[in-house]
Amino acid sequence: MVLWNYATPGIPDEMFDRLPGIPLSKCEVRLLLISHLRLRSHSVFWDIGAGTGTIPVEVGLLCPSCKIVAIERDQEVTGLIDRNCQKFGIKNAEIINGSAPECLDVLTDIPDRILVEGGLTIKEILEYCWNRLATGGRIIATAATLEGLYKISESFSQLQVRNIEVVQSSFNRLETRGNRQIFAAVNPIFILSGDKIS
Amino acid sequence: MVLWNYATPGIPDEMFDRLPGIPLSKCEVRLLLISHLRLRSHSVFWDIGAGTGTIPVEVGLLCPSCKIVAIERDQEVTGLIDRNCQKFGIKNAEIINGSAPECLDVLTDIPDRILVEGGLTIKEILEYCWNRLATGGRIIATAATLEGLYKISESFSQLQVRNIEVVQSSFNRLETRGNRQIFAAVNPIFILSGDKIS
Amino acid sequence: MVLWNYATPGIPDEMFDRLPGIPLSKCEVRLLLISHLRLRSHSVFWDIGAGTGTIPVEVGLLCPSCKIVAIERDQEVTGLIDRNCQKFGIKNAEIINGSAPECLDVLTDIPDRILVEGGLTIKEILEYCWNRLATGGRIIATAATLEGLYKISESFSQLQVRNIEVVQSSFNRLETRGNRQIFAAVNPIFILSGDKIS
Amino acid sequence: MVLWNYATPGIPDEMFDRLPGIPLSKCEVRLLLISHLRLRSHSVFWDIGAGTGTIPVEVGLLCPSCKIVAIERDQEVTGLIDRNCQKFGIKNAEIINGSAPECLDVLTDIPDRILVEGGLTIKEILEYCWNRLATGGRIIATAATLEGLYKISESFSQLQVRNIEVVQSSFNRLETRGNRQIFAAVNPIFILSGDKIS
Repeated sequence: MVLWNYATPGIPDEMFDRLPGIPLSKCEVRLLLISHLRLRSHSVFWDIGAGTGTIPVEVGLLCPSCKIVAIERDQEVTGLIDRNCQKFGIKNAEIINGSAPECLDVLTDIPDRILVEGGLTIKEILEYCWNRLATGGRIIATAATLEGLYKISESFSQLQVRNIEVVQSSFNRLETRGNRQIFAAVNPIFILSGDKIS
Repeated sequence: MVLWNYATPGIPDEMFDRLPGIPLSKCEVRLLLISHLRLRSHSVFWDIGAGTGTIPVEVGLLCPSCKIVAIERDQEVTGLIDRNCQKFGIKNAEIINGSAPECLDVLTDIPDRILVEGGLTIKEILEYCWNRLATGGRIIATAATLEGLYKISESFSQLQVRNIEVVQSSFNRLETRGNRQIFAAVNPIFILSGDKIS
Repeated sequence: MVLWNYATPGIPDEMFDRLPGIPLSKCEVRLLLISHLRLRSHSVFWDIGAGTGTIPVEVGLLCPSCKIVAIERDQEVTGLIDRNCQKFGIKNAEIINGSAPECLDVLTDIPDRILVEGGLTIKEILEYCWNRLATGGRIIATAATLEGLYKISESFSQLQVRNIEVVQSSFNRLETRGNRQIFAAVNPIFILSGDKIS
Repeated sequence: MVLWNYATPGIPDEMFDRLPGIPLSKCEVRLLLISHLRLRSHSVFWDIGAGTGTIPVEVGLLCPSCKIVAIERDQEVTGLIDRNCQKFGIKNAEIINGSAPECLDVLTDIPDRILVEGGLTIKEILEYCWNRLATGGRIIATAATLEGLYKISESFSQLQVRNIEVVQSSFNRLETRGNRQIFAAVNPIFILSGDKIS
């Protein structure tokens, strides 16, 4: 039986397995990330700091011929990504436990899409990823903090990322609290994306 | 040559042909609409009040085996939808010039996904659509006004739409104005969606 | 010693005494509420469902010649309002423990400003308040839920409130979480206000 | 006759005289700015890049014993500030036509509140203002752009501004367009503020 039998992305958050304290990209934010990735049907896609694994799952369903690599530092979290991929029947995701950028050295394929969702040394990771990224490829990074926004923006400028776009998501959902339905705000995320032209 | 050669939705707004005064669902809103549609690969999908035709284009690319029907009152706007569908090579969209709900009588296929983006008599349209909607299908409606939000919400309640979700989009984009890049807000839209269980 | 020695409103949230589960109007929302009240220096102001008492405190400081009446159903919460008023040295606030609208019958002064922040029977409360409101006065009500938004809007229309304004607040604050500063969203509130012309 | 006869800030935007192309701090943003200023009844307040003059007007009404200095580069805009101050009967605002920071040299009073709303050389202006600011004073700056946000944040850090707060405003107003009332978003502004401790 297939859990998500739809041709469109946007799996409800509560369908994913969770671990306490491990971030999950909210459904609405995920839609933006996937859109900014502009995946091709046979893209090689790295997801660095994949957290709960919602992006590998959505991309796996949407692009079954992509080659997905999900990277996570924490072993328990790697297991979580694996569980979510199995739950949704994803067959084209490789999950790597390791610390970026060092752990990426073993990967021989050239990625044309890279999403950086986290990392201790964001500038170092972005520089490493940029060097590995195929010409014509796209890089996307997310920031929840002002410091993250700065560092990514500065890196993008130094690396000469082209066609940079910055969007800040911000959603209100009608959520049930007891017997009331209040408008609850989803914390905003900055999404930065751009192209490697040459 | 294919204009949008990606496996993911989210075509930039400026790639569509426009007509002055005709609304265009902004890229970020489109992503939410497509997600709430939860299309199946062979869905029969009605888009009522299709405006610029961005949804038929995105759905046509994402679900090439769907049967899309786009309805618009204004003949000039119908032509615009047609131009945009041709521009992006959409082959599975039928474009109907007419006033909903009357013009829907001639459609014999049973839709399992209906999006209501507008209409003079929103409650009448929703009721008609609900009656035509396949069991197990989904209905989605958008509101930019408080009055629209009321009417849709009231209709959904009267029609006994199940698993109703309400989300309010709200995005800020970094946009270039002269030689500055300011954060510009995209006007918020309420998106209501739900299931027809039986 | 005076705790808030400034001529401007906007006391930080953490300066107020709190009780678990009792709502507090966030600083930014409070500013909007006070602004929409358009208080005169000698206004008679009713705050119905005053919660933590942040509005009586801010109004008391800003308009020391106003006559403020704060109404709360719960006795423990009434005590909280009293504590906050004492903490900030407010001398022009009367705090009433009772259920609106019944408990308002004993008040003989004619209010020219009424804020309805809550209540079990919102429509009944609004109608009662409207009848008591001075001609030329203003009524303000807040909603966190879609249902509340409907009911207030419907009431305002039935009562023929004039110059109705609706604003939806939505703020992001840079907040410290551990050693990071993330953008946190303040849940949105709808604020409806209008005039009693005759 | 007094135009704004209320004890609370938040004058509707349309009550101010305007000049095409000259920015006006929207009512809701103004409330935040005034709040973050935390004015004392006898503050000396500099408003640098005062634009339409809405802040001098609101502060003038709220703190009639403050000493307000409004600085603007453009002579025509200086005239606009003057007109708005006269319109609202403000008597405690001095309007200076000149380029900050040079034009500030002639001011002999020591300011304890400074708002920087603009300027060609934002870092230079912030540094100059910080040096002039009284110990115990507050500095506030606004940014509509990512670059502005960076520069102010970097300056605040270098100048060792204390108790830095960052808030991003974001409002939706129900606005009348033709015979419809749509939710319109007010463009977001970042507001940074902090204290000079010693």
